[in-house]
Amino acid sequence: MKQELPPVAYGAVEQVIGALQQRYGDRVSVVRAVREQHARGEGLSTSLAPDVVVWPQDKAEVCAILALCNAQQVPIIPFGAGSSLEGHVSAPFGGVCIDLSRMNAVLAVHLEDGDCVVQPGITREDLNAHLKGSGLFFPVDPGANATIGGMVSTRASGTTTLRYGSMAHNVMCLEVALADGRLVRVGTRARKSSAGYDLVHLLTGSEGTLGIITEVTLRLHALPADVAAATCAFPTLAAAVEAVAEMSMCGVPFARIEFLDEHQIRACNAHSHLGLAEMPTLFLEFHGTPLAVKEQAELAQEVAASHGGVDFQWATRPEDRSRLWHARHLAYFAALALRPGCVSIVADICVPMSALAECVGMARAMIDREGLVAPILGHVGDGNFHVLFMPMPDNAAEHAAVDRVYSAMVERALEMGGTCTGEHGIGMGKKDKLLMEYGAEVVGLMRTIKQAWDPNMILNPGKIFGA
Amino acid sequence: MKQELPPVAYGAVEQVIGALQQRYGDRVSVVRAVREQHARGEGLSTSLAPDVVVWPQDKAEVCAILALCNAQQVPIIPFGAGSSLEGHVSAPFGGVCIDLSRMNAVLAVHLEDGDCVVQPGITREDLNAHLKGSGLFFPVDPGANATIGGMVSTRASGTTTLRYGSMAHNVMCLEVALADGRLVRVGTRARKSSAGYDLVHLLTGSEGTLGIITEVTLRLHALPADVAAATCAFPTLAAAVEAVAEMSMCGVPFARIEFLDEHQIRACNAHSHLGLAEMPTLFLEFHGTPLAVKEQAELAQEVAASHGGVDFQWATRPEDRSRLWHARHLAYFAALALRPGCVSIVADICVPMSALAECVGMARAMIDREGLVAPILGHVGDGNFHVLFMPMPDNAAEHAAVDRVYSAMVERALEMGGTCTGEHGIGMGKKDKLLMEYGAEVVGLMRTIKQAWDPNMILNPGKIFGA
Repeated sequence: MKQELPPVAYGAVEQVIGALQQRYGDRVSVVRAVREQHARGEGLSTSLAPDVVVWPQDKAEVCAILALCNAQQVPIIPFGAGSSLEGHVSAPFGGVCIDLSRMNAVLAVHLEDGDCVVQPGITREDLNAHLKGSGLFFPVDPGANATIGGMVSTRASGTTTLRYGSMAHNVMCLEVALADGRLVRVGTRARKSSAGYDLVHLLTGSEGTLGIITEVTLRLHALPADVAAATCAFPTLAAAVEAVAEMSMCGVPFARIEFLDEHQIRACNAHSHLGLAEMPTLFLEFHGTPLAVKEQAELAQEVAASHGGVDFQWATRPEDRSRLWHARHLAYFAALALRPGCVSIVADICVPMSALAECVGMARAMIDREGLVAPILGHVGDGNFHVLFMPMPDNAAEHAAVDRVYSAMVERALEMGGTCTGEHGIGMGKKDKLLMEYGAEVVGLMRTIKQAWDPNMILNPGKIFGA
Repeated sequence: MKQELPPVAYGAVEQVIGALQQRYGDRVSVVRAVREQHARGEGLSTSLAPDVVVWPQDKAEVCAILALCNAQQVPIIPFGAGSSLEGHVSAPFGGVCIDLSRMNAVLAVHLEDGDCVVQPGITREDLNAHLKGSGLFFPVDPGANATIGGMVSTRASGTTTLRYGSMAHNVMCLEVALADGRLVRVGTRARKSSAGYDLVHLLTGSEGTLGIITEVTLRLHALPADVAAATCAFPTLAAAVEAVAEMSMCGVPFARIEFLDEHQIRACNAHSHLGLAEMPTLFLEFHGTPLAVKEQAELAQEVAASHGGVDFQWATRPEDRSRLWHARHLAYFAALALRPGCVSIVADICVPMSALAECVGMARAMIDREGLVAPILGHVGDGNFHVLFMPMPDNAAEHAAVDRVYSAMVERALEMGGTCTGEHGIGMGKKDKLLMEYGAEVVGLMRTIKQAWDPNMILNPGKIFGA
């Protein structure tokens, strides 16, 4: 990644570090290993450390830290679980990393309304553990055990988005500390509102560049009365994807339709002892009343069979389902284990359903032609898929091949009405691809908002926008 | 409504009128009756006419008109079907009304992807007529036969939002002419995207203050295999609303749950010869496979019965269902007919489900105490309800009573985590209530975006923001 110039002349960070140490004592660290650990997400090989890490324990502290950084014109980078894939937590211009992991309380659960209020540092697994026994759950599931604040910031989605929506559909209110330290609240706990500009959606996916989230109100969903899961293998990648396209057209609310290609299945078998046939495979899940689940499952089986799907295996017991989805969640690490020492670049394309088979097929053909190691998997029910590129760190030829394939994939996706990122965001890794998708004029419109809200450009600089 | 000062010093409109007449000939009108008709929506009694009305026939003309108005600093007010309820089409500072009703083509229907591309002037009924036979439909149904552009602009929703979402969930891409006449495109045809700031949602609900929509890509939905509808009467308003709260909690995807109080039922009986018992009543609709519909209907009936619901009447034949929903759509006009010569003020509150019974009950008690004529109805499955206030135009005491009730309703809704408008928007009518909801700081954040994108403040001035 080429070095960028800062968007403004930043102030010196020493004074800020001194003030933070004085105020927050041992909740401040300048230790190199700590700083480096906070600069590293998953996936992106380049990480640049902040000058200091601070762990606020409440919203007042977040506001005070922002006011301090703004006054001194020092960058501030929010950090949750560090599971971002596009370098969102990197600090290209140094500054203060604000680690929100200690602000991880559930502040309220409104059972009757189906919502909850949480601090940004709670992880989705901890939230669901807290909700256990309530009859409600928080469905958005990006795989990684990300924090809710991080998931809001990247507009995350995942395996259940097909039925329950992405973060864009499940964030009701946000409390946000602005660049100058003011605290504002946007959105309501009503199911819908037409009150002025939709700042909730504007902030959801803004990657920490417009404010630091201090509180999130999330929509929760009723736990389904019944759940069934299955895997189904297909003779070819194309057959699997065509089956998905047909399932998506029939208007049935499937809960999850995940695709794993034969390379990914081999990796998962090795890592999680799944014992599945090493063929292109769909992981399916059905939620609803017992009758509805039965009906959905029969329909899926019928569609799968008509596309050559074989070996329909049911996971009816909860422990079998958990094992299956646990393996799916570990797919990323399972793939990395195929090639010890590699780095990973996770492509994240989302296209209209009619373009999915062509785009996946084209990616596979290019990967094979280039001789790369790169499983394909994804949330195909949404038209979203990933390629896990795994070049060796020092192999320039492999990196160049990855760039060729990835660029061609994005180009084709955009031509077909898709997007360069379904769920991982832009960060530092995809700024050029954002420009490909929207052009300088639209990115310029985004930037006018950034400039109006954060004139000193202290909030997560170097992300979304080029220097 | 008190007269406002313009937000900037606008230029003289004569030169613009001359240029428009020269360019567009008989697609320009300065006739008083035409101008006045274009200033009038439903509901808001004050309407202020533009200086001229122009009917562009393509996006290039929209851009040219904007560039002209921007250069001369003349306000521009977009107009669709004129069904807005909060004075969105009024021209408080004069200027050019741009009537988009001739840009009403369906540009593409993508059957496999479940989306379509339309011009903004098409109405939702015309769109659904066009889709007939495709197996797909566009579900968002605000009652009025609004244009799609207008529905995007107010972030409209309605009777089916419970199952299919509001405009916020169903707009995929927008092509928009900016204040200076540049044309930009935001969003993609993929089901989800994390590519930069979410400008689609920002524009959806921006009421023509950030740009003029020239093309909309909408998500379509599969027509359900089976549909059933029913009405059910309840002994009290509270019993009906409590039944809805329980239905909303069970995680079943009901298609419509509409409430009409006994006054509204009386009006509908008189207007549409429904012959229903004059009691608080729910209108229900179930979509799905035959089995799913049967299961949902049984569940609803069970919940209704447990709250004293009686007289469950099924409308199984399509013509009976149409009659029922036609009557529901005409509820507004049916109510107005109760009081010839009245004006209407349609309150539009949306609250968390747990607050619904209290808020509806409080509104009814205040209405009765003030001796007003005001049926209550709404999309209660979303927590959204309307009071149709019908004061006589010159009765100051009635208007004052309406203000007292409406303000108290909004105050209570906000205290309980709700919003001052579930679906009608802010327009000119609710600017004070927007400030109550969010305060000057958040409205100021919205305004910074407005100022950055439309520095001459030509786009629909006087809406959302105070002068």
